[in-house]
Amino acid sequence: MTDHVYKKIELTGSSDVSIEDAVENAVVKASQTIRNMRWFEVVETRGYIDNDQVAYWQVTIKIGFTLEGEDGSQ
Amino acid sequence: MTDHVYKKIELTGSSDVSIEDAVENAVVKASQTIRNMRWFEVVETRGYIDNDQVAYWQVTIKIGFTLEGEDGSQ
Amino acid sequence: MTDHVYKKIELTGSSDVSIEDAVENAVVKASQTIRNMRWFEVVETRGYIDNDQVAYWQVTIKIGFTLEGEDGSQ
Amino acid sequence: MTDHVYKKIELTGSSDVSIEDAVENAVVKASQTIRNMRWFEVVETRGYIDNDQVAYWQVTIKIGFTLEGEDGSQ
Amino acid sequence: MTDHVYKKIELTGSSDVSIEDAVENAVVKASQTIRNMRWFEVVETRGYIDNDQVAYWQVTIKIGFTLEGEDGSQ
Amino acid sequence: MTDHVYKKIELTGSSDVSIEDAVENAVVKASQTIRNMRWFEVVETRGYIDNDQVAYWQVTIKIGFTLEGEDGSQ
Amino acid sequence: MTDHVYKKIELTGSSDVSIEDAVENAVVKASQTIRNMRWFEVVETRGYIDNDQVAYWQVTIKIGFTLEGEDGSQ
Amino acid sequence: MTDHVYKKIELTGSSDVSIEDAVENAVVKASQTIRNMRWFEVVETRGYIDNDQVAYWQVTIKIGFTLEGEDGSQ
Amino acid sequence: MTDHVYKKIELTGSSDVSIEDAVENAVVKASQTIRNMRWFEVVETRGYIDNDQVAYWQVTIKIGFTLEGEDGSQ
Amino acid sequence: MTDHVYKKIELTGSSDVSIEDAVENAVVKASQTIRNMRWFEVVETRGYIDNDQVAYWQVTIKIGFTLEGEDGSQ
Amino acid sequence: MTDHVYKKIELTGSSDVSIEDAVENAVVKASQTIRNMRWFEVVETRGYIDNDQVAYWQVTIKIGFTLEGEDGSQ
Amino acid sequence: MTDHVYKKIELTGSSDVSIEDAVENAVVKASQTIRNMRWFEVVETRGYIDNDQVAYWQVTIKIGFTLEGEDGSQ
Repeated sequence: MTDHVYKKIELTGSSDVSIEDAVENAVVKASQTIRNMRWFEVVETRGYIDNDQVAYWQVTIKIGFTLEGEDGSQ
Repeated sequence: MTDHVYKKIELTGSSDVSIEDAVENAVVKASQTIRNMRWFEVVETRGYIDNDQVAYWQVTIKIGFTLEGEDGSQ
Repeated sequence: MTDHVYKKIELTGSSDVSIEDAVENAVVKASQTIRNMRWFEVVETRGYIDNDQVAYWQVTIKIGFTLEGEDGSQ
Repeated sequence: MTDHVYKKIELTGSSDVSIEDAVENAVVKASQTIRNMRWFEVVETRGYIDNDQVAYWQVTIKIGFTLEGEDGSQ
Repeated sequence: MTDHVYKKIELTGSSDVSIEDAVENAVVKASQTIRNMRWFEVVETRGYIDNDQVAYWQVTIKIGFTLEGEDGSQ
Repeated sequence: MTDHVYKKIELTGSSDVSIEDAVENAVVKASQTIRNMRWFEVVETRGYIDNDQVAYWQVTIKIGFTLEGEDGSQ
Repeated sequence: MTDHVYKKIELTGSSDVSIEDAVENAVVKASQTIRNMRWFEVVETRGYIDNDQVAYWQVTIKIGFTLEGEDGSQ
Repeated sequence: MTDHVYKKIELTGSSDVSIEDAVENAVVKASQTIRNMRWFEVVETRGYIDNDQVAYWQVTIKIGFTLEGEDGSQ
Repeated sequence: MTDHVYKKIELTGSSDVSIEDAVENAVVKASQTIRNMRWFEVVETRGYIDNDQVAYWQVTIKIGFTLEGEDGSQ
Repeated sequence: MTDHVYKKIELTGSSDVSIEDAVENAVVKASQTIRNMRWFEVVETRGYIDNDQVAYWQVTIKIGFTLEGEDGSQ
Repeated sequence: MTDHVYKKIELTGSSDVSIEDAVENAVVKASQTIRNMRWFEVVETRGYIDNDQVAYWQVTIKIGFTLEGEDGSQ
Repeated sequence: MTDHVYKKIELTGSSDVSIEDAVENAVVKASQTIRNMRWFEVVETRGYIDNDQVAYWQVTIKIGFTLEGEDGSQ
């Protein structure tokens, strides 16, 4: 892996179920346009409150993926 | 929302179930005296260990709520 | 001032004019219920975007005020 | 303690004696209106200088206390 | 908004007028290629000095925007 | 508890189930050699992505435990 | 610019007008004794409150300037 | 440079030689798709260990580049 | 000292007297099993409140000590 | 105080007595060449250990003082 | 790797050659007593100055290694 | 060393060779006017990119030096 270069992007996923589900929603969404995703780091966990209850979770993550060939932009 | 002013308070909720449950316990407790809660931010996640197991989760959050009328203290 | 005790509260003010105006809106709102405010510290500067323009600024500040007499809660 | 919810408030105490004394002054002041205080965390240590000497210490702490019954505001 | 996923990008805008103007310049530039921008967060405020005066302000912000359809890259 | 001294160690636990499960795996592992564990603090939450899905969670925690007798190393 | 060495000093400027004006006041003051100032970074934004209004802004900046010749102290 | 807008992206470069080489590898890779790169900031320095030796360095940087014309996405 | 390698461990000491005393208690405890301690860094200062007074101080420090011979674990 | 400009310098004071004494030693030393010192902020608290005991405390502070007349360098 | 638990320890390596060499010295030292080291993270880079030159580099790293079998202490 | 007071200044050195060389350039420059330098701490590592390559490294350090006699300003 010595010669790999990774790019990190920052996404915020939402879920009314759990923190894990919010992360997974962000990863699924990213997979529509990003290939070779390798890891994520949780940057911030927030949520919205409606009617005195947690309405949904909002989790911001950084996703790292391998840059390949000549396409470094993705 | 241009003219809204929000106040943030810091609470720590506990739960022997999950991180999400600890947050929800804090929100429910706050709802007894705070109206118009809008969002929360997770500040710290800790927990206590008893008998070599996680006994309960302690999650500190900041809750933001709208200040209304002449009552800015809540 | 050796024997003074100050309390700090965290507020978020909004304005469609400027960062300074958002801070002043928060201070004015706080003055409805807090006496003896002395200083503030800017904690976070954010804003909302609508129609490709900055719609309004949201500035979170901590306000410090003197606790007096027997009333330490304000 | 699984079902406890704690609130944290931020105070700045002063003393011309020591850092510890400044913290204790803040705790004593808070005790006039807050019950069930459990712990504090030192957030910042500053001080004022007068006539080339430390005139007094100013220590900012967060105090955590248990929210009880239906009163979550204190 | 439960199922929304947001992406955050980091831009630095410049202005010889004010901090607010530097932010707005960054937002206007981003609007040329990004749709559905929702909020920004100020990350850093700097500036250049020329001839003993502030020549221009440089403000770094993160802009959050909604990812839509199948295009998560923008 | 005035005379207690605690040591904190840093561990990273993994789980393909949840953040909570990753923490518990770390605590269970630590219990094989550490006695008197009292609390943990979540330091970092990351995870690995495989085949466009979250493969497993990696949560880094600090565990605090009481140092006893003459054995301060554990 | 490969062989340049810069020194950074920390100043706090005040203004009853705006954040920008407080920065400019600090830069003007520094120009009385510092040559070759190149950039500044905003470190902290605070202010004093008097009579329930923002009395003045206090902005702390670091100013970077080129060290020249044999005089590295300035 | 008053009217310039810069975008910052985050990359991780690897090298089995040195920290500097890992940064340069990231810059070279980015140059395949990004024009007008101006500066970088080191965000994190890590590395992998194999057989009790540093196998390679992994350095995460932010690269700033000028946004030009109507293309603000790059 | 060019060829020295130091290890840092994290301890929390307690005292009902002062911050300094809490640090010294941690150092004394560590000395039962650690040799060649050289320095400490205060990481966190907290305390417990009982009956509206500071019951004891809890100070977390990192202690650095020299690794010697073939024993790098200590 | 609207038109004041302050400069902050960073000093490390030592003492074998206490944290407070280390701060005061730094202030006394600074007073030999700096006039109009107003406040300090504790940045870091460390210490050296000798013979399994705290040998002395090292406290790093920033001292703020008023810049006067045409001399902004002090 | 789902069921792995890693421990992180903090070491400071020294070298009069380079930052990389200081890291490698720490890794080599750690290898005398730690097995299964996987990665490191640079926490702090410092150095000592002697006779107006950099005498040696001191780099503090965290080393992560796999905990195996029943021995979680290492 | 109990009675020593140190001052820390912040410098940015440049080099087209390496991070270490940038630090050494700053130290050499500082030695023209500062005596008794003892240590440095790396605060930030950046660099400029020209023609798709690292043109030079810019490393910001704090240098600590002993204040002697009656001259605390240096």
